[in-house]
Amino acid sequence: MEISALQKARYAYRPKLPVILTGPVSDIAIEFGTPTESVADQADLRALFKHSYGKPLARFVKGKNDKITRRLTVGVILSGGQAPGGHNVIAGLYDGLKKGNKDSKLLGFLGGPSGLIENKVVEITDAFMDEYRNTGGFDMIGSGRTKIETPEQFAASLETAKKLGLDAVVIIGGDDSNTNAALLAEYFLEKGEKIQVIGCPKTIDGDLKNEHIETSFGFDTATKTYSELIGNIERDANSAKKYWHFIKLMGRSASHIALECALQTQPNICLISEEVEAKKLSLGQIVDQICDSIVKRAANKENFGVVLIPEGLVEFVPEMKKLIAELNDLMAHYADEFAGLSGFETQAAWLGKKLSAESAKVFASLPAEIAKQLLMDRDPHGNVQVSRIETEKLLIGMVEQRLAELKKTGSYTGKFSALAHFFGYEGRCAFPSNFDADYTYALGFTAFVLIASGLTGYLSSVKNLTAPADQWVAGGVPLTMMMNMEQRHGSKKPVIRKALVELDGKPFKAFAAKRAEWAVKTSFLFPGAIQYYGPSEVCDQPTKTLILEHS
Amino acid sequence: MEISALQKARYAYRPKLPVILTGPVSDIAIEFGTPTESVADQADLRALFKHSYGKPLARFVKGKNDKITRRLTVGVILSGGQAPGGHNVIAGLYDGLKKGNKDSKLLGFLGGPSGLIENKVVEITDAFMDEYRNTGGFDMIGSGRTKIETPEQFAASLETAKKLGLDAVVIIGGDDSNTNAALLAEYFLEKGEKIQVIGCPKTIDGDLKNEHIETSFGFDTATKTYSELIGNIERDANSAKKYWHFIKLMGRSASHIALECALQTQPNICLISEEVEAKKLSLGQIVDQICDSIVKRAANKENFGVVLIPEGLVEFVPEMKKLIAELNDLMAHYADEFAGLSGFETQAAWLGKKLSAESAKVFASLPAEIAKQLLMDRDPHGNVQVSRIETEKLLIGMVEQRLAELKKTGSYTGKFSALAHFFGYEGRCAFPSNFDADYTYALGFTAFVLIASGLTGYLSSVKNLTAPADQWVAGGVPLTMMMNMEQRHGSKKPVIRKALVELDGKPFKAFAAKRAEWAVKTSFLFPGAIQYYGPSEVCDQPTKTLILEHS
Repeated sequence: MEISALQKARYAYRPKLPVILTGPVSDIAIEFGTPTESVADQADLRALFKHSYGKPLARFVKGKNDKITRRLTVGVILSGGQAPGGHNVIAGLYDGLKKGNKDSKLLGFLGGPSGLIENKVVEITDAFMDEYRNTGGFDMIGSGRTKIETPEQFAASLETAKKLGLDAVVIIGGDDSNTNAALLAEYFLEKGEKIQVIGCPKTIDGDLKNEHIETSFGFDTATKTYSELIGNIERDANSAKKYWHFIKLMGRSASHIALECALQTQPNICLISEEVEAKKLSLGQIVDQICDSIVKRAANKENFGVVLIPEGLVEFVPEMKKLIAELNDLMAHYADEFAGLSGFETQAAWLGKKLSAESAKVFASLPAEIAKQLLMDRDPHGNVQVSRIETEKLLIGMVEQRLAELKKTGSYTGKFSALAHFFGYEGRCAFPSNFDADYTYALGFTAFVLIASGLTGYLSSVKNLTAPADQWVAGGVPLTMMMNMEQRHGSKKPVIRKALVELDGKPFKAFAAKRAEWAVKTSFLFPGAIQYYGPSEVCDQPTKTLILEHS
Repeated sequence: MEISALQKARYAYRPKLPVILTGPVSDIAIEFGTPTESVADQADLRALFKHSYGKPLARFVKGKNDKITRRLTVGVILSGGQAPGGHNVIAGLYDGLKKGNKDSKLLGFLGGPSGLIENKVVEITDAFMDEYRNTGGFDMIGSGRTKIETPEQFAASLETAKKLGLDAVVIIGGDDSNTNAALLAEYFLEKGEKIQVIGCPKTIDGDLKNEHIETSFGFDTATKTYSELIGNIERDANSAKKYWHFIKLMGRSASHIALECALQTQPNICLISEEVEAKKLSLGQIVDQICDSIVKRAANKENFGVVLIPEGLVEFVPEMKKLIAELNDLMAHYADEFAGLSGFETQAAWLGKKLSAESAKVFASLPAEIAKQLLMDRDPHGNVQVSRIETEKLLIGMVEQRLAELKKTGSYTGKFSALAHFFGYEGRCAFPSNFDADYTYALGFTAFVLIASGLTGYLSSVKNLTAPADQWVAGGVPLTMMMNMEQRHGSKKPVIRKALVELDGKPFKAFAAKRAEWAVKTSFLFPGAIQYYGPSEVCDQPTKTLILEHS
């Protein structure tokens, strides 16, 4: 296998660990807190998780641990979208297992949770592991989005686990995957099986965090990669002085990625979905906000700039949410009639009569290309595919219209030429930053200690992340502690609560304090490419979000 | 001014120089070769460049140079699109001038060549220079695309130069800008003025190179940045195993960028415009080539992959070139009639009757979105804007159609889901790689030596670039030597000959030898982010193109 020079060099990187994990494993004891409660809906969750609800927090301390050196067989699953560092979770888990007992075995389930259901598995050996240390991607064993949901799937998972003689399953995933881990842990307990389940907090989106999980892994590397690109584009904008760049950033519902990138690059505008929702902003108001910056900068002869847009924005704009819901209803209800309408103009005229007055007005205000996208790109259930909406182009189109109006009134005399970008896949499989390489390795090693100590239904937890790695604090957080009940597909389901951007949190406040200045005055920052070597202030810094949250 | 940690660290980087440039400047003598000839059209060019044609090659050697320490005033211009390293050309020139004589002055013309015409200028001081060392972008003095063409512009340029007491002008630019440098040098000589003109070879596109210019600066950094992103996307594709990514890459007409990125990342497909033209491939043949890979990979259950597409592709497809020419003619000739046609269907029907049979067939075969783009996105002269054509989406649409046909015949049973990307602005303003930082600094210093030695009409030249920097060979190449006559806007003009990808050159041959394997077998390489620190094999390597050309 031919590999790049960087990949070869990264093989030699030794991830840093909390000091507790660097000594003999038999010296790692568990200190338990008091029983915990879920963040909401305690009664419902206690009923659903009869055997696993309310366990105490676990923290590693120096002490005797006799169980830890016994021979173990563990299976590991990568679940959901890629995030940099997944391979190092496996490496930390592998090295921990082998340190505990050289005869312990680690099996990798192929292609995500379906690997467990269908018993598709590979044994991880030294040579195999060494090919993936400190690398990006989930290509070592693949990932998948299958959920273990039906009774048959749970039964099949148990059957695989028993067939393979597993002591434990480690699920590396986001909020949904870890909800699944909690259900699987409960299922095994209910069936009287000793197979343990441990989760690890993964997602570039940064929305799996709480009091005990300071950040999900991958967020650091992904935001640094996007910030590299945004900074490069800012520098280009400031050099050519002729384009406004509208950059959409991956991140699902939450705006953590956009916010972190804004803190790293200081663009003229960064929209935050959570704020749009809280303030009930209309598309028109968002466009006005952008145009305000464009007009002021044009007055300073700066006909260029950068706008960051979180992927989930349109769903947080109340009027768009309403329009999309109405479109979904109408097209489901009048599927045949709608299918009989030929051409966009005919469809638009028909919708004009069927939509509520408010939604009809919003629909009519959309640039034609976007309106067409809403009608054409539908999922197999006929629903509008919100993630396919090119929000960056939608906003460019509406800004152009608004600026043309302002030009007529004489309040704007600048030039506006815009370019659209979308960054997402570029950052999910980068080589993990030193921070993510260390953090994930520690998470994996911690998962081993939790397993070897007999715990189940826990999320691997490594805290105090803004301190040097040797001072990090390792332990476990009961999965049920992070859960509440939410409406999903018409019924209440237990889920890990998603962390959205908090408008009274320090990262947002730091941004809000500066954005009026950034909107007018060019204040771009150019972070450059992620560095794995060099001065510590260049290559070892955590995200600004994490630093601010800890300040 | 707030700056990033990397920017601060990069300020401290000391670019490496050829050994000849590291000693006392008065020990750098010039060794001249014999008179040179242009690459073609010698008689025409000799007539056009009466005072500057045919000068000898210049090479720096150890020896006495008395002139070099005299006090000089030099103006510098950044011309055209951004390329990483522009600021270091200025730094090398500045440091050379100050080393020669501490009272020498460097003036920066603002916003490109128009700064010279309009006398918009800033003096470069130590403090100002230090803010831009080893940084990306052209924001130090800005750039622009104005050409010095009319007699008035030439006269105004001379007037500015005299007003400022300039000894020389340095133009940092691509083939067009350096053609302009040659014309300006000739103009000053013709007017009996002693103002010298020196060019520096800039362009990320890599198409300004020849026997004496091994590469243009910026190509190294830009291709490394794009390759980082392509590699990350490849790793994502190989992890998720569900998308084909179609990635268009900046680079104007030439496919050097796409080829270099292919050598660095080993994608399944990389189209090379020069080959498409040489083999007179139709869109259908290109689509067949892509589908062949998709079908074979699907048979191996690999329903994912990566396709690289050079920006200029459509202009190299003979049938598309013809179609675009016909559309431009028709829409110019029947402008009013065409403007009266409402709706795409009406326009398409009208065109169906007016286009030649061949072009009508091609037009009808295009996905609707692309056909609409051809008719809508026209420049102020009414011409189709080729650079706006979303070739990546065009190919996706045509591949989908073709796969649907193959599915009917039973010869394809895979799944095809595609994502489109375009990388360009992300790479033009990155922090220059160590290679580009060193190379540009050496080019700037070399420009100083050429000026101080009294030369004009030369391009700064640094050769032997695959050796360590101390072994690089510095000198100057007469601009007229690289020129020929080409048809531009209806008349023959002197221009520097553009270097396209040579199909019998080593880089293309290395790619061609491997691509059949890459098309079927996943052979991705993940170069990762540009590193400025760390092991030399990671942070100091030139491009594969340069290494192959020197092998």
